[in-house]
Amino acid sequence: MIKVGVVGATGYAGEEVIKILVNHKGIKITELSAVIDKEEPISSIFPALKGKIDLICKKPDAEAMAKNVDLVFLGLPHKVSMELVPIFLKAGKRVIDLSADYRLAPDVYKVWYGVEHKDKGNLPKAVYGLPELYHDAIKKADLIANPGCYPTSVILGIAPILKQNCIDTGHIIADSKSGVTGAGRKPDLALSFSEVNENLKAYKANEHQHKPEIIKILSEVAGKTLDVVFTPHLIPMNRGILSTIYLRLTRKLDTKDVIDIYEKFYKGKPFVRISAEGKLPQTKDVVLTNYCDIGLKVTGDILIVVSCIDNLKKGAAGQAVQNMNIMFGFDEKEALE
Amino acid sequence: MIKVGVVGATGYAGEEVIKILVNHKGIKITELSAVIDKEEPISSIFPALKGKIDLICKKPDAEAMAKNVDLVFLGLPHKVSMELVPIFLKAGKRVIDLSADYRLAPDVYKVWYGVEHKDKGNLPKAVYGLPELYHDAIKKADLIANPGCYPTSVILGIAPILKQNCIDTGHIIADSKSGVTGAGRKPDLALSFSEVNENLKAYKANEHQHKPEIIKILSEVAGKTLDVVFTPHLIPMNRGILSTIYLRLTRKLDTKDVIDIYEKFYKGKPFVRISAEGKLPQTKDVVLTNYCDIGLKVTGDILIVVSCIDNLKKGAAGQAVQNMNIMFGFDEKEALE
Amino acid sequence: MIKVGVVGATGYAGEEVIKILVNHKGIKITELSAVIDKEEPISSIFPALKGKIDLICKKPDAEAMAKNVDLVFLGLPHKVSMELVPIFLKAGKRVIDLSADYRLAPDVYKVWYGVEHKDKGNLPKAVYGLPELYHDAIKKADLIANPGCYPTSVILGIAPILKQNCIDTGHIIADSKSGVTGAGRKPDLALSFSEVNENLKAYKANEHQHKPEIIKILSEVAGKTLDVVFTPHLIPMNRGILSTIYLRLTRKLDTKDVIDIYEKFYKGKPFVRISAEGKLPQTKDVVLTNYCDIGLKVTGDILIVVSCIDNLKKGAAGQAVQNMNIMFGFDEKEALE
Amino acid sequence: MIKVGVVGATGYAGEEVIKILVNHKGIKITELSAVIDKEEPISSIFPALKGKIDLICKKPDAEAMAKNVDLVFLGLPHKVSMELVPIFLKAGKRVIDLSADYRLAPDVYKVWYGVEHKDKGNLPKAVYGLPELYHDAIKKADLIANPGCYPTSVILGIAPILKQNCIDTGHIIADSKSGVTGAGRKPDLALSFSEVNENLKAYKANEHQHKPEIIKILSEVAGKTLDVVFTPHLIPMNRGILSTIYLRLTRKLDTKDVIDIYEKFYKGKPFVRISAEGKLPQTKDVVLTNYCDIGLKVTGDILIVVSCIDNLKKGAAGQAVQNMNIMFGFDEKEALE
Repeated sequence: MIKVGVVGATGYAGEEVIKILVNHKGIKITELSAVIDKEEPISSIFPALKGKIDLICKKPDAEAMAKNVDLVFLGLPHKVSMELVPIFLKAGKRVIDLSADYRLAPDVYKVWYGVEHKDKGNLPKAVYGLPELYHDAIKKADLIANPGCYPTSVILGIAPILKQNCIDTGHIIADSKSGVTGAGRKPDLALSFSEVNENLKAYKANEHQHKPEIIKILSEVAGKTLDVVFTPHLIPMNRGILSTIYLRLTRKLDTKDVIDIYEKFYKGKPFVRISAEGKLPQTKDVVLTNYCDIGLKVTGDILIVVSCIDNLKKGAAGQAVQNMNIMFGFDEKEALE
Repeated sequence: MIKVGVVGATGYAGEEVIKILVNHKGIKITELSAVIDKEEPISSIFPALKGKIDLICKKPDAEAMAKNVDLVFLGLPHKVSMELVPIFLKAGKRVIDLSADYRLAPDVYKVWYGVEHKDKGNLPKAVYGLPELYHDAIKKADLIANPGCYPTSVILGIAPILKQNCIDTGHIIADSKSGVTGAGRKPDLALSFSEVNENLKAYKANEHQHKPEIIKILSEVAGKTLDVVFTPHLIPMNRGILSTIYLRLTRKLDTKDVIDIYEKFYKGKPFVRISAEGKLPQTKDVVLTNYCDIGLKVTGDILIVVSCIDNLKKGAAGQAVQNMNIMFGFDEKEALE
Repeated sequence: MIKVGVVGATGYAGEEVIKILVNHKGIKITELSAVIDKEEPISSIFPALKGKIDLICKKPDAEAMAKNVDLVFLGLPHKVSMELVPIFLKAGKRVIDLSADYRLAPDVYKVWYGVEHKDKGNLPKAVYGLPELYHDAIKKADLIANPGCYPTSVILGIAPILKQNCIDTGHIIADSKSGVTGAGRKPDLALSFSEVNENLKAYKANEHQHKPEIIKILSEVAGKTLDVVFTPHLIPMNRGILSTIYLRLTRKLDTKDVIDIYEKFYKGKPFVRISAEGKLPQTKDVVLTNYCDIGLKVTGDILIVVSCIDNLKKGAAGQAVQNMNIMFGFDEKEALE
Repeated sequence: MIKVGVVGATGYAGEEVIKILVNHKGIKITELSAVIDKEEPISSIFPALKGKIDLICKKPDAEAMAKNVDLVFLGLPHKVSMELVPIFLKAGKRVIDLSADYRLAPDVYKVWYGVEHKDKGNLPKAVYGLPELYHDAIKKADLIANPGCYPTSVILGIAPILKQNCIDTGHIIADSKSGVTGAGRKPDLALSFSEVNENLKAYKANEHQHKPEIIKILSEVAGKTLDVVFTPHLIPMNRGILSTIYLRLTRKLDTKDVIDIYEKFYKGKPFVRISAEGKLPQTKDVVLTNYCDIGLKVTGDILIVVSCIDNLKKGAAGQAVQNMNIMFGFDEKEALE
């Protein structure tokens, strides 16, 4: 029985990790912590957990926690993770970090997050936890940089056709739309109900911190540096991301051809489903699941890709558990169905 | 041309007052203030006001503002209003206060708001700004205690039948449901979209600070002290309050009789509409208007009253302007249709 | 392995039954049917089921289906169920009917549903499927009348205190609020997004067809005929019911006493949870679960009960599966956690 | 006083036309009609109109109505308008048609709407009612083809830079997001609350019937035939359209240059507002108004345009009244502020 800890247990991602793990047969949650006023049972904080887990959510103490876990999930804000990761790694524990701290090269990190990286020593050990691309490396990793929600939907939507070398890499446009939990659990006027409901906005157009992450991984897939135009939008719903991606084909392909390419690419990957020709996925097909549903349509020389995930499952906690399953030899789908 | 100032211009109530006043023919907004980081045009803060008003929203300075207004609207948090009201009254200006600071007797205020009242001298001058009950006093008032949103819907829904002396005053139950703007414009996790959306809750059951306000005014209507059971609920929508009120009739009346009583009571009151027999109002009939729509249904000896308002209009800013219209001799409906 | 069929597989309740059953270890879904244009895999109709169940959803043919099931769930409109139930019972199969057709005495049924009951012969065999009250009868039943969503929340909220014989049975007020899936899956202007969103309404005030069901069961609990005032409201959210119930205590009890009564009553019942003193449940604590969460507050001689369920789980499909578990000797919680 | 009729008075667009016109000083609504079961006052159908207009909404009779109007608004489904327009024109009345029936050439109409056009005689008389492009023709027109909601947001967002001849016309991508009222007021399972809420989908990707309308007008602006990629999305909110448009610049321009081009183009147009550099509009800035707010951002050689309107105001009824104001010599803004 693997002993698992969750740091940042009261955030949306942390909560979701716990909700998944209470149904996992191979592990036991032994430690929970968060920045809270008083230590109390997690089921007092999230009444939905009543009767499922009784553990006390403690104040953060990484050294102490490290003694009682084999693996730790970090559901922390950016910049905080890199202070804790070294502690767990040094104690010989494996880490799945849901923040952005280990996803980028240090120079890029500094540009986008505004601070010098504090744990450059461990950075090269981090494996990008997108199992559909990096399964074997994940298996052996001690440190997983769990992907961002937007990048998961965008990268999975582009990788197969990019790999085939038949799109114009100077023309990749990703127009992404996200539910509000993607922004985290925090008091913030811009996220208050009255501001978000009955409203729709684009934000950080082509300046969102997930852009370099998308570029980095897609460049690895393409085997050369490329660029993307990426505009996120905030949608008045709790969960779900839908990315509409516009690619220019450099080879003559019809929708059927492209579906074929995608199905081959994702063969044997349990959490990606390709829609039948003429159908496009919607977020409710994937919400509360770990699936990424991808719809494809060729029109002229443009390929439109619609890629849907649940931002807290495949976009965060679900993918994190998928990574854990791979790391510890569990069925990749355990607790995720 | 009356010169008008708005303090607390960036809150939901303040914003709404401004949006109404820009269409008012008899007044001119001369001053706006709010607790803000930098002074800038109100149209930069609320882009929807672009082209309608250019005024700078200043940092608060009541003394300075008092020199340039005839009337001031205070859209402030409770406890702050009572520090500013004396300044404006001393300068000979009239005040419409949208907070709760001048609605209760000082001893009751202390119980419900937890602090000693700081302006007991002016408290007796305050007129409760519910025009359907206190029209004549409002006309002459220098200080209006503008009613709370819940009390407006509940009091208007009960007053006519209570006045007839034919309900059991020991059995008044008001089950109120409100949209989220009623809670104000502020960063607060409990008001964040992801917490409120797809959720429904009762809160402060029979402990809400609007309860003593309801009791005070209904007791005045009844001519004796009475009690109410009042449970507010938070609804995932921006605007609107619907109060479902359960009263026990002490005289044999059918729905038609009761409708008749209500129609007589509100005759000549432009902002109360009584639904036809067999119909109940819904919030969308009143949202963005200053109307209170009331539906009535007798079943056995129980009278069910459904009372709907827009919490920011009739429940706050609209009623405040209605009061201003009465105070300054404008058409009661000016700028409210 | 029990063979199970679902009739009305494309409605919200039918869909939910299927989603629960695909995770059930003791049964196998062998038949699905619905009124559809063409027979196709259920996973084409509900893409979220892709990879979980491949069965074809057929057009209705009760006789044929009866040959291939041990138990059938009927997720059908009222008045349709009573035409199919006799067919399955005659074939020796057990039936869980989610409609209202077997919940009321025939004379009451006629008053509220407007038609003569067509299967009076089987009506006496039906057991009301509320396990917290009728567990032993359910065990032996061949025909379950699965409770309505509103009645489940209201009855569970009142039964313990009513059983103690310490409330005024002439004063039971249930103010219920429901998400929109409770109204079923059908084209209906009144249920369209633009009509429901940003709106709130009471409907069928004290005239809703669930009222006689509440009265019947509560009268059985009380051992005498009583009446209730019941007003349902439509809330702009998908799932969840919250009933706020106002009862007049005839004995001096404080909140702690009442909590004690409820905890004793529901001891050993896995799906009812009583909130700690000072806390009230909200719908998101129970949404997507089979729990009923009940909060209690005494104020003067009034007991306020807040009772929350997921209308499609404990209010329909979840409770139906709970009944199946009891009928066939499975763990009561199987597939429901 | 101009006499005005509204056909299709019970649809969302018709309702909105009425709500605007009751505040218009230069006209009088003399006729209302809709396909309804019984003729009744429009204020019984829309209680929000109580006290503002008492007119009976009649069953359709174009000949009779034509005798009592100077101008008629047609808020009708596609294919129905073209049966009524000839009647009104023959009677010498002016017509503003909110359907798509007079927006396209007959051959294109047939391709996209699937039927032969029935009024080819009047088609050449129709003026496309986008005042920012066709003001002078609108002034003299007897028949206005009022633009679609998506085309209004997209065309206004592209026209200024296209006119400057500095974008790649082979690379125009419009990713549009709309609230649900855009789909009209009708019973339709796909538009029901439970299907739309907490869901997000792309639909009719590059196959939406508004595509040829966008192409037609933009080709007129460009002076040559061009193509667009257009993907609409359905957003869980009532009102508002936000189009995110991706254009490739063929000349070196920065954001400031582009803002300058747009401001010059829309100089003197009262209902288009260009956002300051670094700001992007959101739908709530324009909802319930007739404004189109446009934000601009250059990144590399890509110009991102964000264009927001209220789909029922600038996207339908508001624009229709704007056209009326121009046709009859009223202030272009009358009743629209």
